[in-house]
Amino acid sequence: MPSSMSQASLPVFEIGLNALSGVLDKAEVFARAKKIDPSVLLAWRLAPDMFALARQVQIATDQAKNGSARLAGVEPPRYEDDETTIEQLKARLTRTVDFLKTLDPKQIDASAGREITFPLGPNNKGQMKGDDYLNHFVLPNFYFHLTAAYAILRQCGVELGKRDFLGAIPLTMT
Amino acid sequence: MPSSMSQASLPVFEIGLNALSGVLDKAEVFARAKKIDPSVLLAWRLAPDMFALARQVQIATDQAKNGSARLAGVEPPRYEDDETTIEQLKARLTRTVDFLKTLDPKQIDASAGREITFPLGPNNKGQMKGDDYLNHFVLPNFYFHLTAAYAILRQCGVELGKRDFLGAIPLTMT
Repeated sequence: MPSSMSQASLPVFEIGLNALSGVLDKAEVFARAKKIDPSVLLAWRLAPDMFALARQVQIATDQAKNGSARLAGVEPPRYEDDETTIEQLKARLTRTVDFLKTLDPKQIDASAGREITFPLGPNNKGQMKGDDYLNHFVLPNFYFHLTAAYAILRQCGVELGKRDFLGAIPLTMT
Repeated sequence: MPSSMSQASLPVFEIGLNALSGVLDKAEVFARAKKIDPSVLLAWRLAPDMFALARQVQIATDQAKNGSARLAGVEPPRYEDDETTIEQLKARLTRTVDFLKTLDPKQIDASAGREITFPLGPNNKGQMKGDDYLNHFVLPNFYFHLTAAYAILRQCGVELGKRDFLGAIPLTMT
């Protein structure tokens, strides 16, 4: 079985977003046990000029939905970016995984050589070949925000391990 | 042009490791300007139970060299893990990029359906199909440690932006 663009994107995002949902579950349990308002965690940052946890989760979903949609040649859905609770962020993760399931893997597989144009900041546009866009833009950005969200919660004291980050990957352990 | 396992691994690691080398350059300049001993930065952690910066850099190179070597069906080189300076860590990054260039992309391309067995912690072994190993284990782990290294330095005050993290990606901006 050869590798494919759809295999390198759809299940990767689905597993990563579901893993992040599990990480947020642990954050919620932690907040309750420590009597911390969960909004304190959602506003935590690794540095003053880095995004807070809630925004990291939003951008992780944006990379997944926008990247996959552009590769599939369909318009990505727009979200309101108005989540203020863990429950709402988890709903956004679920909504994104549900959207990924509507995409046609064959269209993504056919996108490797196609030029993709995408917004880059408020005023610019980026252009990359489909496989470059996935390998060198969408995946690194997706994992950046996934890791930042995880690291924020580790810093806050939530008990998380690498398996929480990796999620339900197809791994046989012996 | 179809997507390929080698395109989804070798240039991804090369760009990411070179980007990390540039990030370490900025850390060195920052330490000199602020009169901070660089070893303070190398020992910084996002949380007490997370790895320090030096170890994050080591593991990022391990994921790149071990992952690529196993996909190519060759024995990964063993490093001593004895780096204590930014210069030594940069040499490790260069050495790893040089090693990646010795691998045969065709062997990696042929590995998608092959079962890969790899050490998992001190006592266990993991087994995954080649493309799953790349998509769901090597890449997420690689980016986890790359992001952690970057985030540690952002937290310490080094002026870094997303372009420093992404590195020299094949992007046309308009």
